[in-house]
Amino acid sequence: MERIEIAEGLDFSRLVYGMWRLGDDADTSPAHVRAKVEACLDQGITTMDQADIYGGYMAEEILGQALKGTDLRDRIEIVTKCDIVAPMGRHAGAPVKHYDTSRAHIEASVAQSLRLMGIDRIDLLLIHRPDPMMDPEETGAALDGLVASGKVRAVGVSNFRPWDWALLQGAMETTLVTNQIELSLAMHEGFTNGDVAHLQALRRPIMAWSPLGGGSLLAGAAPALGDALRAVAAEQGGDPAAVAVAWLLAHPARILPVMGTNNLDRIRRLSEATRIEIDRPTWFRLYTAALGHEVP
Amino acid sequence: MERIEIAEGLDFSRLVYGMWRLGDDADTSPAHVRAKVEACLDQGITTMDQADIYGGYMAEEILGQALKGTDLRDRIEIVTKCDIVAPMGRHAGAPVKHYDTSRAHIEASVAQSLRLMGIDRIDLLLIHRPDPMMDPEETGAALDGLVASGKVRAVGVSNFRPWDWALLQGAMETTLVTNQIELSLAMHEGFTNGDVAHLQALRRPIMAWSPLGGGSLLAGAAPALGDALRAVAAEQGGDPAAVAVAWLLAHPARILPVMGTNNLDRIRRLSEATRIEIDRPTWFRLYTAALGHEVP
Amino acid sequence: MERIEIAEGLDFSRLVYGMWRLGDDADTSPAHVRAKVEACLDQGITTMDQADIYGGYMAEEILGQALKGTDLRDRIEIVTKCDIVAPMGRHAGAPVKHYDTSRAHIEASVAQSLRLMGIDRIDLLLIHRPDPMMDPEETGAALDGLVASGKVRAVGVSNFRPWDWALLQGAMETTLVTNQIELSLAMHEGFTNGDVAHLQALRRPIMAWSPLGGGSLLAGAAPALGDALRAVAAEQGGDPAAVAVAWLLAHPARILPVMGTNNLDRIRRLSEATRIEIDRPTWFRLYTAALGHEVP
Repeated sequence: MERIEIAEGLDFSRLVYGMWRLGDDADTSPAHVRAKVEACLDQGITTMDQADIYGGYMAEEILGQALKGTDLRDRIEIVTKCDIVAPMGRHAGAPVKHYDTSRAHIEASVAQSLRLMGIDRIDLLLIHRPDPMMDPEETGAALDGLVASGKVRAVGVSNFRPWDWALLQGAMETTLVTNQIELSLAMHEGFTNGDVAHLQALRRPIMAWSPLGGGSLLAGAAPALGDALRAVAAEQGGDPAAVAVAWLLAHPARILPVMGTNNLDRIRRLSEATRIEIDRPTWFRLYTAALGHEVP
Repeated sequence: MERIEIAEGLDFSRLVYGMWRLGDDADTSPAHVRAKVEACLDQGITTMDQADIYGGYMAEEILGQALKGTDLRDRIEIVTKCDIVAPMGRHAGAPVKHYDTSRAHIEASVAQSLRLMGIDRIDLLLIHRPDPMMDPEETGAALDGLVASGKVRAVGVSNFRPWDWALLQGAMETTLVTNQIELSLAMHEGFTNGDVAHLQALRRPIMAWSPLGGGSLLAGAAPALGDALRAVAAEQGGDPAAVAVAWLLAHPARILPVMGTNNLDRIRRLSEATRIEIDRPTWFRLYTAALGHEVP
Repeated sequence: MERIEIAEGLDFSRLVYGMWRLGDDADTSPAHVRAKVEACLDQGITTMDQADIYGGYMAEEILGQALKGTDLRDRIEIVTKCDIVAPMGRHAGAPVKHYDTSRAHIEASVAQSLRLMGIDRIDLLLIHRPDPMMDPEETGAALDGLVASGKVRAVGVSNFRPWDWALLQGAMETTLVTNQIELSLAMHEGFTNGDVAHLQALRRPIMAWSPLGGGSLLAGAAPALGDALRAVAAEQGGDPAAVAVAWLLAHPARILPVMGTNNLDRIRRLSEATRIEIDRPTWFRLYTAALGHEVP
């Protein structure tokens, strides 16, 4: 499995295992979660993507229970996120779903993430959503402080547009290392609206959430695209879902797909995507099917 | 009343009194206009927002008549604007509404504004609308020249997108100090489309026109938003309109709402907005009502 | 005919003759093509706009046949483009229309353009469309290399948005000299969406393709605009199409319209547009007709 340097001294596996549905599994026992992580590690997938809010603010604790008493922590990189406050779990009292990029909230969220996962340090902390009420000086200072304290190795953002990035980065000492955005054959505007170009220009790798479009790619909503994926899969002897992931891997921006299945069989086959070769015409064949028309 | 530094040696009151309807009042007598300005000053509102075109190119003169023979000019800051040429008043002969950012037009407009208001210097001159035909070198030189001559203390823009700002600023010596844009619970795209972020990144305060959405916020067009404003107003013992203004004041970008009523009673209560506290959850409660759905 | 400096030591005629329909003419004989070029030269139109793909990858060869055995090459500047691979002509085997900004493709395309036109050097090479799969380092190095080798005097782009430009330019030594974009009274978004402002800020002239909107301006699809063009034409004693081109020439960004007719009579009258004066109110009168409403 290819490794991508995210920050000095920190690299991620090209494929990332996403834990946003970890709490949705019927079996959330430590043994079962460990089995998932081990299935990832068997393929060289070492990077685990969390967020405080996943599983209604419960997914970090589920992971923490699984890590306890094992050496798994030292064999993985942990990404987590903060700033979404939704009226559930420990934030049940919030009057409305909102974002909080205040220093107090970020620091409290990180402390809670560390405690719930039973770890000393988060490898990468992301601001989960751009906060229209962000005070860049305050948020930037909070992130700088967390890196300086060693509680967090690196910081980045998620779902930021280029101007949100510029605003926050301009108020920080530390370098933002990545932006985790929705990117797939079902959500490809990023390839033309400047989001991907912005990160390419900064030479930062991109984390892609929902690389299968939440399953929509193959669900019949876009029959021409489903057909194209199946055709390429048949030619290469692979799986249509793996082809959709390989489509992201083939892009020169260094995209790290975040894969989120709870199904152990599927987890064991995640790395199939890395064995599929998408050449330029095939990339455009799939893109054309996704657009619904040929490129201009 | 809080003061905001706009340029070196020039600060504005946090709330600005807008004179775009000054000519619509049944009573445009000097005495009545003075009463309005005095009602502002009583609350610490010292900044008056004008434009050449307000009142069909008549509002500056109405203010000038009120200032004459008083010491009011020294107790206020005067903002005015230029570049809109509409077929009315002194531009009745224009074949079509258009913008003019030529040096000749800007200089003539400033000369006329100074004459009509009977003042020696404009505190802040804004280019009123981005001109799709702007020659940045010419417009920039005109603005630099006006500052150098002392006819204008500071210059800025209005309704500019970030690229318009970059184009003009890149051709100037003087620093553009603000952008006056439409911003309210009824027009909130600026908080996500980069307009606010751009000015925050530049550390420039923002002037907000139509902070009540031209009255639409409470007029029933958006019942959920009206309800939310009334609910917050009831909790805080204030006025729903004041809550809408306080929503802008609570944002860290340093937004200066430009309030434009002709009603003396309402003018006397403009500063109510500064006594309302909008905390982060409340800010998002109102924003959510304005969006019509919760944040993602 | 005015000349515009495109790069050091290279200038273009203000009007450019576009050869995208060269292969559509019933008569593609060398003599007839020479007659067209001579008709351009008679008016001072010395810059010829080509692309590998024009005429199904045949237009460059048609021009090459006309240049052979003449001194025409030394009297013109040749622009050509690459990166579109469409399943026709020499790319008949391509499975789908796509873009190719790989080093290998760009170099092969330039070699082929030189061979087909029978020339030693391309004056200006443009990347024809932004490639969503572009590797900026590779594409930038390819362009730098072509300039260093002398096969190409200058390089630029076409249909790029500002972020595409920034991405490619950031990976290059050579300066991108222009962006050829669609710009006309029928496609005027560029004047407000940052595309024109971006190039003005960089002090780069703009090439405008389809300056007559592919003929739609006068075809009845926009009757108010057609009427406005005819009215201005009548006032100035010119042709409505020439007025539409003059509208572009009047803009301070230094726009070079690319005119593409095959009709010899029309070619002989292309320079009429340079004799029409569009003052600011007239510019907005036409723009207003194109918008369908007055400016805000």
